Amino acid sequence: MEIGFLGLGIMGKAMSMNLIKKGFKVTVWNRTLSRCDELVEMGASVGETPAAVVKKCKITIAMVSDPAAALSVVFDKDGVLEEISSGKGYVDMSTVDPETSSKISEAITSKGGSFVEAPVSGSKQPAEAALLVILAAGDKIGNGARMKLVVNMIMGSMMNAFSEGIVLADRSGLNPSDLLDVLDLGAIATPMFKGKGPNMIKSNFSPAFPLKHQQKDMRLALALGDENAVSMPIAAAANEAFKKARSMGLGDLDFSAVHEVVKQHKD
Amino acid sequence: MEIGFLGLGIMGKAMSMNLIKKGFKVTVWNRTLSRCDELVEMGASVGETPAAVVKKCKITIAMVSDPAAALSVVFDKDGVLEEISSGKGYVDMSTVDPETSSKISEAITSKGGSFVEAPVSGSKQPAEAALLVILAAGDKIGNGARMKLVVNMIMGSMMNAFSEGIVLADRSGLNPSDLLDVLDLGAIATPMFKGKGPNMIKSNFSPAFPLKHQQKDMRLALALGDENAVSMPIAAAANEAFKKARSMGLGDLDFSAVHEVVKQHKD
Amino acid sequence: MEIGFLGLGIMGKAMSMNLIKKGFKVTVWNRTLSRCDELVEMGASVGETPAAVVKKCKITIAMVSDPAAALSVVFDKDGVLEEISSGKGYVDMSTVDPETSSKISEAITSKGGSFVEAPVSGSKQPAEAALLVILAAGDKIGNGARMKLVVNMIMGSMMNAFSEGIVLADRSGLNPSDLLDVLDLGAIATPMFKGKGPNMIKSNFSPAFPLKHQQKDMRLALALGDENAVSMPIAAAANEAFKKARSMGLGDLDFSAVHEVVKQHKD
Amino acid sequence: MEIGFLGLGIMGKAMSMNLIKKGFKVTVWNRTLSRCDELVEMGASVGETPAAVVKKCKITIAMVSDPAAALSVVFDKDGVLEEISSGKGYVDMSTVDPETSSKISEAITSKGGSFVEAPVSGSKQPAEAALLVILAAGDKIGNGARMKLVVNMIMGSMMNAFSEGIVLADRSGLNPSDLLDVLDLGAIATPMFKGKGPNMIKSNFSPAFPLKHQQKDMRLALALGDENAVSMPIAAAANEAFKKARSMGLGDLDFSAVHEVVKQHKD
Repeated sequence: MEIGFLGLGIMGKAMSMNLIKKGFKVTVWNRTLSRCDELVEMGASVGETPAAVVKKCKITIAMVSDPAAALSVVFDKDGVLEEISSGKGYVDMSTVDPETSSKISEAITSKGGSFVEAPVSGSKQPAEAALLVILAAGDKIGNGARMKLVVNMIMGSMMNAFSEGIVLADRSGLNPSDLLDVLDLGAIATPMFKGKGPNMIKSNFSPAFPLKHQQKDMRLALALGDENAVSMPIAAAANEAFKKARSMGLGDLDFSAVHEVVKQHKD
Repeated sequence: MEIGFLGLGIMGKAMSMNLIKKGFKVTVWNRTLSRCDELVEMGASVGETPAAVVKKCKITIAMVSDPAAALSVVFDKDGVLEEISSGKGYVDMSTVDPETSSKISEAITSKGGSFVEAPVSGSKQPAEAALLVILAAGDKIGNGARMKLVVNMIMGSMMNAFSEGIVLADRSGLNPSDLLDVLDLGAIATPMFKGKGPNMIKSNFSPAFPLKHQQKDMRLALALGDENAVSMPIAAAANEAFKKARSMGLGDLDFSAVHEVVKQHKD
Repeated sequence: MEIGFLGLGIMGKAMSMNLIKKGFKVTVWNRTLSRCDELVEMGASVGETPAAVVKKCKITIAMVSDPAAALSVVFDKDGVLEEISSGKGYVDMSTVDPETSSKISEAITSKGGSFVEAPVSGSKQPAEAALLVILAAGDKIGNGARMKLVVNMIMGSMMNAFSEGIVLADRSGLNPSDLLDVLDLGAIATPMFKGKGPNMIKSNFSPAFPLKHQQKDMRLALALGDENAVSMPIAAAANEAFKKARSMGLGDLDFSAVHEVVKQHKD
Repeated sequence: MEIGFLGLGIMGKAMSMNLIKKGFKVTVWNRTLSRCDELVEMGASVGETPAAVVKKCKITIAMVSDPAAALSVVFDKDGVLEEISSGKGYVDMSTVDPETSSKISEAITSKGGSFVEAPVSGSKQPAEAALLVILAAGDKIGNGARMKLVVNMIMGSMMNAFSEGIVLADRSGLNPSDLLDVLDLGAIATPMFKGKGPNMIKSNFSPAFPLKHQQKDMRLALALGDENAVSMPIAAAANEAFKKARSMGLGDLDFSAVHEVVKQHKD
């Protein structure tokens, strides 16, 4: 069975490669078509447009960067909607807000197609290692998106707390590497601290999950909280730190680059 | 070798029991002496005062609740200082601020005694299971205390972020238990979320690490940041949430009881 | 000249009454028409629909509660758009976001009408006393709305700071009334503290500017900041306090009712 | 009657000059004695030490920078305590915490002297214009200090809110000067916004009330809140912004220099 794959960013590239490695035939499309080359070398075909991919494949997966892009690949000219039909499935694995998911779902199903909302939890490394957690919502469209926002909100607040801890350790005369060792032994050990910590100490912020996307998820999670009258002071403070990082030009780095804001000082 | 143990709260009781189980002879003391009974049944001796314990034992460990208590067992009448001397060691495993540690260290060493500052990371369960992480600072008195504060500060902020996530999930129509499952699979899985989450959902806050102690550690960590001009907005917001919990009468419950403040609402 | 007035809430009622007192002929409309009765007694005419009002009047003013209502009176069936035309003016004095203002402006001007965006700064009392500050943006549609959001954002943060001060004074053994006296003599004396303070101390929160509207303005101001990468931690913390107040069922009281959240405690 | 005056910083200089202008004979002392020269030209005498000033004067006023300095002029060698006695009065107008006030009060009264705690609300300009608000606590020692902390806490939070508003206005395309005009007409008009606003827009932060002192007062106010279990999230967020400003080397500028932190961004 041929599988279509729309979007070859950090995540999409790793995910489509894994499909090929597992033996699936894959047809890929990306806005900048040259990003398809590496996949082609591994055996993928290329579709010229999202519509062309859907026409060819029974199941098409999308993994694009934000709600605007998710809507664009579906609704624009040469988009998914032009070829989706009964018997064809469309799986959107992008992180979007529940409203975007609902719009796409309605459009796909009104044409007879099947829709699954399946955002993933995890970034570059888990994607490459085929270890992503997939939050498929089935009939409860919007729940996968909501769950993703809640998880990323907690993650964004934790990243800020972690960064504050590293800076406090450093400025009070402790070795930040010792802090990482201590954290790894205790009740708040987590793969994120272990994975990101050493790079943060070295000011290495090559992007696994870009800061501007993390901040977007904080904003969407806070908006979800606003709708439901949930007060979230920690998430709000973390969001403002990510906004400060954006204003400092760090939006395209990894979201751990908020560390640059936290540690900023003058001697 | 006889080991002295001062302070039989949640932590001290579990730790001294483990010493007995490992075959050490232990002499215990507690401000309220009746708390020694359970240890006596397991084979411990009782010292009438801290001084009496130090007189009898080559090494005495203290595990008391706060800086004031840590100073009191050393400096008050019938305190550690009256009997400490060359050849005797004193290990303070309480969580205190660096200044308190330094005062105690100077007093002990001026009498010829040896002092080790060794706060622990972990609460009731790890204490009972002999799985505490011990932050022994050796010559760098104050560093163990500092490290402990940094770790607990991160932990307190994480607890708030976690609680906000549970409430956001619940109020936006997700099942909070599903959130726990999703978290446990991903990059921010941590023993604390796994251990505390199910109890928080059931509003079970029996104290492993009392909220008032967590808030004290947040306060001390923020003070350490103030000294070193480290701005920590997440920790500050978390501290205010813990203070709100204290003002609501939740100080003696587990620190996860901050969840009661976060979820508070009227329909 | 006949002036139309759409929306007779707290603000609109006071404003249309002032127009009548100044000798203008006024035709009013309100979603719940019975709210027009008091104005009719003072000499106003009633329009059955927004369209009917615009048909009759050269200039029509709208003062409704939120962006959704502002759009509704213009675009819905029997709305302003059906009768607006060259030679007629439409003045929207509601507090809305810049996008809403732009949409309305485009629709009105495409029909040949003139549009002025003119949100007001001030609540019930200044409205009744004809002392509102009008932020008319002229050609720069959206700027009046933006200015209003900035002012209300500062006001919302100040209200929280003020409330925290009253509670801190009270709980540390000072007389909150003395605080009001001291504030009134110094560099941060402001009509708001003088006007709202005594009522807050008496827990009197009858609505001049409803809390849910203040929180909406905080949210819109934060969204404006997000667009422009402006980090605003104080506004964010204040917004979360207002959200907590909403979740406690205080949304319809005056925005000073956030004081109930700040002072909440158990002895 | 001869009046003694200890401490000739920004505030003390202006205050002692006003005493001379009003016809009082004044004997001044300052740690760096050369700062006395300007006062001597106006007719003041100089005391070599605090003790010498107290010996000569029936009433001695102190206006020093922080609790440590307030304790030092009283308790150190050649300090106030050496010469205070029955029939002599000591008025401390410095901003200190309640504990410091109590210590000084006890020491002075145990020697038979009279003590008045009288911190002032106001900075350079009101001091020069003889318009300071004096918070004299009379018998309730500590209350003046507490009131001062509450007022300064509100002021510090307001300054942050104001700064956020100016930056938001500027980045969303409004003229910050227009914002100042609008604020000055409405319910949140205040001398501070009017006085500081134009300088902030011009990045002029010459110190009337140094930022490091404002941050110290925020810290002391938060500590007072901690003692009394008062949760103050706005003050806590403002305090962290002031700490960030300190870490950026802005501690000696006016407290409005927190504006530099708020507006910091990269294009």
